[in-house]
Formats: sequence, C-alpha cells, structure tokens
Amino acid sequence: MKNKLLFSLLTCLFFNLSQAQQVDFKSDSIFLDKIFKTSLTNGMSYEWLSYMTNKIGSRLSGSLGAERAVEWGKNTMQELKFDKVWLQEVMVPKWVRGTSEFAYIDSGGGTTNVVPIAALGGSVSTPPDGIKARVVEVQNFEELAKIGKDSIEGKIVFFNRPMQAEFIETFRAYGGAVNQRTQGAAEAAKYGAVGVIVRSMTLSVSDDPHTGTMSYGDLALNKRIPAAAISTKGAELLSGMLKLNPQIRFYFKQNSKNLGDVLSYNVVGEIRGSQYPNEIIVVGGHLDSWDLGDGAHDDGAGIVQSIEVLRLFKILGYKPKRTIRVVLFMNEENGLRGGNKYAEVAKQKGENHVFGLESDAGGFTPRGFSFAATDSQFERISSWKSLFTPYLTDSFTKGGGGADIGPLKTDKNILAGLRPDSQRYFDIHHTASDVIDSVNKRELELGAAAMASLIYLIDQYGIN
Amino acid sequence: MKNKLLFSLLTCLFFNLSQAQQVDFKSDSIFLDKIFKTSLTNGMSYEWLSYMTNKIGSRLSGSLGAERAVEWGKNTMQELKFDKVWLQEVMVPKWVRGTSEFAYIDSGGGTTNVVPIAALGGSVSTPPDGIKARVVEVQNFEELAKIGKDSIEGKIVFFNRPMQAEFIETFRAYGGAVNQRTQGAAEAAKYGAVGVIVRSMTLSVSDDPHTGTMSYGDLALNKRIPAAAISTKGAELLSGMLKLNPQIRFYFKQNSKNLGDVLSYNVVGEIRGSQYPNEIIVVGGHLDSWDLGDGAHDDGAGIVQSIEVLRLFKILGYKPKRTIRVVLFMNEENGLRGGNKYAEVAKQKGENHVFGLESDAGGFTPRGFSFAATDSQFERISSWKSLFTPYLTDSFTKGGGGADIGPLKTDKNILAGLRPDSQRYFDIHHTASDVIDSVNKRELELGAAAMASLIYLIDQYGIN
Repeated sequence: MKNKLLFSLLTCLFFNLSQAQQVDFKSDSIFLDKIFKTSLTNGMSYEWLSYMTNKIGSRLSGSLGAERAVEWGKNTMQELKFDKVWLQEVMVPKWVRGTSEFAYIDSGGGTTNVVPIAALGGSVSTPPDGIKARVVEVQNFEELAKIGKDSIEGKIVFFNRPMQAEFIETFRAYGGAVNQRTQGAAEAAKYGAVGVIVRSMTLSVSDDPHTGTMSYGDLALNKRIPAAAISTKGAELLSGMLKLNPQIRFYFKQNSKNLGDVLSYNVVGEIRGSQYPNEIIVVGGHLDSWDLGDGAHDDGAGIVQSIEVLRLFKILGYKPKRTIRVVLFMNEENGLRGGNKYAEVAKQKGENHVFGLESDAGGFTPRGFSFAATDSQFERISSWKSLFTPYLTDSFTKGGGGADIGPLKTDKNILAGLRPDSQRYFDIHHTASDVIDSVNKRELELGAAAMASLIYLIDQYGIN
Repeated sequence: MKNKLLFSLLTCLFFNLSQAQQVDFKSDSIFLDKIFKTSLTNGMSYEWLSYMTNKIGSRLSGSLGAERAVEWGKNTMQELKFDKVWLQEVMVPKWVRGTSEFAYIDSGGGTTNVVPIAALGGSVSTPPDGIKARVVEVQNFEELAKIGKDSIEGKIVFFNRPMQAEFIETFRAYGGAVNQRTQGAAEAAKYGAVGVIVRSMTLSVSDDPHTGTMSYGDLALNKRIPAAAISTKGAELLSGMLKLNPQIRFYFKQNSKNLGDVLSYNVVGEIRGSQYPNEIIVVGGHLDSWDLGDGAHDDGAGIVQSIEVLRLFKILGYKPKRTIRVVLFMNEENGLRGGNKYAEVAKQKGENHVFGLESDAGGFTPRGFSFAATDSQFERISSWKSLFTPYLTDSFTKGGGGADIGPLKTDKNILAGLRPDSQRYFDIHHTASDVIDSVNKRELELGAAAMASLIYLIDQYGIN
C-alpha cells in the first residue's frame, strides 16, 4: 500500500514536472488557429506593404525612401500602441546609382546590340564616356587565374556561371553563384581588367538585370573597376556572340557613386513581458531595399509581417510573458550596419536576447523555419511541428536565421528564419520587378501568421 | 542450438518477405533525385505549355482550340515514341459565349456604372436587347426561399456569398461557395427571377469575372434564365449601391448558346508494362479549358506534367513493370464526358486500372498528394513520405483524386491527386488571366517530377 502510494506520488510529480515544460497541444492549436484566421481575414500586412511599396517605394540606405520608411515604421508601431517605440541611430553607407546605365555589344562594322545592365551596389563609375573593351568570359575565379594577366589586362571580364537549376532550394543555387557578384570586380582587378560584367543572379531567362552588393575588399581606390549585372538574356547573347567572334567589344557606361556614411536608424518597438521582461524575443526584417523596384518581397514583406506579429497578439488579447521586440533593421543590403549596431548596443546594455526570428526570404507561402540552435534545442522545437502541419508550414530544418539577427547569436540562444517557398524569389530579387504585384496577399498573411505562431510558442515555453 | 537456428531462419524468412514489399529507400531516393534534377534542368513541360497556351490558346469543348489540342496531344506523344497512342471518341456539349457580355448598374437619373461580367458556361442568352430589372441580393438558397416568390418575381437574383478567406486550403473555400454558380440559376428560376448574377469564385478583389459551369438540372427549356459571373469588385460595388438604394436596376446582355453535342476525343498514350502489362496506371489531366484566358493552370499544367512523367521515364531509361497510360481527358469543365467515357470503355474491356493520378489543381509548387484509398493502402503509401521530404512534397492526405479519373474508382484501386500550393489558384481560375505568365517554370517542373516519383513508386511496388 505504501509503495503504491509512493509510486503514485512520484508518477504525479514526474508528470507535473514534465508538463511544465511541455506544449499544451490542444489549447495551443486553438490559439494558432485564431492567429491564422485573424491574419487571413483581418490582417494588415498587405495594406502596409501596399503603402510601403506604392507610397514610399524603394528604400536604399541613405535615400529619401529609407528616411520616409523609418518615419512610417515608427508611426505605425506608435499607432498600434506598443509599449515603447524608438529609433536607434546607425551610420550607413550612401551609394547612388546615378543616371541610367547603358551598354551594348559592338560586333564591328557598325553592328551593335543594346543589352540591359545595372550597376552593382558599391561599384564605382565608369569614366564619363564609358568603357569599351574586348571581353574575357569566365565561369569562376580559378578560370580567371588560369587565363592570367597577359590575356586579361585591358579587357572586361564577363562572369557567366549560371545558378544551378537542379537544386530544390533556390537559395542554394544563389549561394553557389553569388561570389561572382560580390568579389568578381576585386578578383578581376588583380589581373588588370578594366571592368566587370556579371550574369544576373537568377534562374529565369529575362530582360531584368539583378543588382546586389559587391565589395572591393582592401583594393586601393585607384585600382577599383566598375562592375555591373547583365540580364540573363543579355548574358546569353553576349556569350553566344563571343563564341562566334572573340574579338567583339563590350561598351558600358554608369555613373554610380559612393558618397560616404550618413545617419540613419533601426526602428524598434516592443511589448514588455509580464513574467520574464528581461528575456527578449526579437522578430524582424530589413527596412532598406535596393533602388530598383519597390523592395516588396525584399524585404518589405519581412517588415510588415514582423509588425503584424505583435498586432495579432494585441488584437487577440495575448499578453506575452517575455519581452517581444519588433526590429526594422537598416542597411542589410549593402553593409549590415543596422544588424551589427543593434547587437552591439544589446551587448553594451547586457540585454538577454533568447530568441530571434527574421523574415527575409520573400513574402511567399511559408513552408517552415530554419533554426540556428543546438541539437537538443532543435529536437525540442521540432516536437512542436505537428502544430504547424494544418498550415503546411512544418518543414523545420537546421540552418541560419537571417543576416540582420545573425550578430545576436550566442551559445545559448536560438535564431530562426522564416522559410517561404523559394521558387519565385530569384525571378524578382533585386530587380525592377520586385513590386507588390509580385506578392500574393494570402501568402504574405500566412507567413505573418506562421511567424506569430512560432513567437507565441517560444514566448509560452521558452527556449530550453 | 536447434531453437536458435530455427529462430534465425524464421527471422531471415520474415525479413525477406517483408523486404519484398518494402521500398528500397536508398536506390529509390537516388532515382527520385534523378527525376527531379532532370525535370528542372532538362524538362519539357514549360515549353509544351508555352505552345499550348500561346499557339493554341483556350480549348473549350467543341471549339477549334480543343480540336487543335487533340492533334497536338496525339502528335506530341507519337513523337515521344510511346508504345501506343490513340484517340478515344467522345461526344461533348458545345457551348459558345458569343459576343462580349455587357452589364451596368443603373442607379437612376442617367447614372450608370459599367461592371465586368462573364456568362456562365451552359447559360442561355438574354433577349437580344438584354435584361434590365431590379435586384435581390442573397447569400444562399435558404435566404432566397425566405424572401419568396412575391419579392423575387421579375427581378435579377444576385448571389453574393464570398468564398471564406479563413480556410488554409482555398479549394475548401471554393467548395463552400460554388453552389451559387452551379445551381443559382436553377434555384432562382423557381421563384420567377429573370436572371442571375453570381459573385466570382475568388478570394481576390479584382476586375476579372470568373466563368465556370452551371446547370439548369431538369428545368424546362422555356424556364431557363441567363446567368453570369460578376467580378468581385463589381459585386462589391453592386452590393454597396443596393444598400444605398434598393431600387437601382441592373442591366446585362449576353448571347451565349448551347449548340448540342459534337464529336471530340480523349487522347491516350501508353508504355506497356514489362512484368504486369494488365495492371494499368493512369496519369492525366484535362485537355479542355474555359474560353477565357488560355487554360494555362487549368489544366494545361496537368496535361504537360502528365506527358512529362512518361518522357522522364523514357529519357532516364526506366522501363515500367506495369502499363502506364497518359490520358488527356476532354470536357472536364462542362460535362465530364471524357472521364466518364474513358471509365466506361475500360469497364467494357475489363481493364484493370490499379492506380490513377490526376493533376488538376494548377501548376504551382507541389505540396503533396491526396489519396482515395483504404486506411491500410494509405498507411502503406504514407510510409513512403520521407522520400518526398527533400522536395517539400510530403503532405499526404486522404481525399479525392480528380474529377476525370473519379469514374475509375473501385473498391480495390487507388486514385490520387497532385496537391500544389493553392493560394494563388483562385486568383486566376476560369479567367482571362489564366495565361502562361501566371505559371512559374520551376513550380510546374517540380510538379511533374513529384508526379513521376509517385508513379515510379507505385509501378515498382504496386498498391498492396
């Protein structure tokens, strides 16, 4: 009898202890259902995105658009009556595209083909009259080295390695090709090239050139050569014509400029936690965008979804246990100054960021999340997957969270990234086509709801 | 010792028996990888779809487009050197839209608002001068009955129940609203209505009217009233104006006609099974489309994906054990005559259709499959899910296969439907916007690969 009682008590104790750490699937699934329904029937993310893209437009760091977006972000969160909304100062690089770029292939005898290009972000200008030179087409830096200075000097290097279509996740294909854009100019300059043309980072065949950041590293100012992206159709044409006649020349002209650093801001809004106010959960995206298009997917989507997370909590009457902070980061695209600054200040203040979630992969149908977490943390979060199955958002993988929240990583905390369907992203990424017409309202709203659901669970149950 | 040996033998026997039925995850995952890579890097589905949509266009039953699509389907499969390609005769209804519809809201004093409408498929014409009448707005048939004949007679009934945004699967929202379109006219005619206007079946707010099939049931010819879909923007305007002034009148004119039955065809191509030629696996979609747009998603996508399944097998050197048949069904949209005919002939011939797979939910990113199967069949197929996880296509549910293959269902066989992401489908469904620009090449190719993967596994391991 005594033994039985002891057993019963121990069982009860064990049960209660384990309960304390475990998800309440029934009540949580009811709350997630409310989150999704509210986002789909009474969401604000699409309306906000419409404002950001159609009334503000592109938001490159240091531009008027970026400045207006900062104001909009602050006002929007203040109107939602978050507990606290503030701007965090950060110096950002100001680069301007200047007047429209112009390029053509000169195949001799007066025959020219105009092709669409866009200066890469950070690139220097060509001389005022442009550059005309013979072209060396390469696939990668190894080939460049093999060809060598004698054959490259005075020429334009054309990096034409396509993204690989065979990968299911298009970000993987991007990762395998993007060093041509980021480091191509610095590499080609070593061999005396006078300019660099890079095949656009996309899997589609299109007329849109895709801009994006590039860096000269520690290359001396007078050694820097101009770099531009060419549309994939233009790249195919150029490559084909080079095969017919290696003597053809390429002309391009751009007057992009680096104007030094200017003052800008991260925009931060928070609801203070009722039980563990010192445990901070961050949800965010980046407020800046490239200057082509309106930055609808990249990253207007992430911005409006992040604000929507806290708005959904407010209208559903959910009071977080932990402090939840929406951060609209500045300057992800060409410097990551906002993300670095936010982490720096957090460290100075000794703030404890237990969890960060970023949406910066487009406003497409959410498929799941990637987690930068320990094995045991990941295993625990994975046990929540079935809560996301009704929303087809239960693909949980290990991986990075996002560029802006990256600097917040510690041994103990968890960073996560929303993982939307990636098939269409690089059709519009960094182009004039990244406008609200390419965003589906419901897909955007589902993403916001998925984010709110994950943040809710983390807020309820912590990270350990 | 003896016991040990017996145990060992039994274990071995059991192991071998169970092995015979089990998927070889390693070699199968290698083959699925090949299927996906080939579809993404060397696929034909998008090129075929481009031809069907841009060179043939819409393919309503009985139209020239449908006739040309039959020819194209036959020629394409013959060029691929399938073992056998043939046409199967089927009589289909021929309905024509006639000249463009025209409609406006007349709010009196010479004030009119033109609104976009489209005659529903199967609807009779208005009188040559159109119909102008007062409007009764209702949400459903119950409300119609409640309002009653006295208040409805001589008026136009306006069905305005929206699809519900809160469902994750948009097909569920469609299912909850579509009876207004299919049966609205037959219902309203009972109460003496002179015409019917139906809110378009979509979750988006747009100017596109969405056509679709409707039926008068057994209503006498002289009792039939014309029915048209109105764009959701038009529906919102009409509803808003009716609230301000219930006396406003609606005018619409259309000259659609039912022209009786004409001869058309299902197009069938097969590769004969090497081991079980009498076990037939069908993969298909429907060749006909509505006359608005080009039927790119509905169901050009399903057609090209189905042909691609067998083409992928051929170029990968895979020789099916079972007979695999591609069926391009005619007349899904307004009669299902092709599906019924195919099943009827199969029955007459005593053919054993063990499995059917249909793609008729758009050419969007595949999320998984739905299966019409017994619990044990479904459980067995679900054990293959992890093979589809790398392609994010592992959402397996119980449910229907597809309208065209539906008549093939028996107690023993399995029918399945490809389940693509459904968020964008009803933005373009049955509208002028269902053109190839709304199809993403990679999403289409992923769907074809997912279908080929499932067919391969069924071919390898059977259904039991």
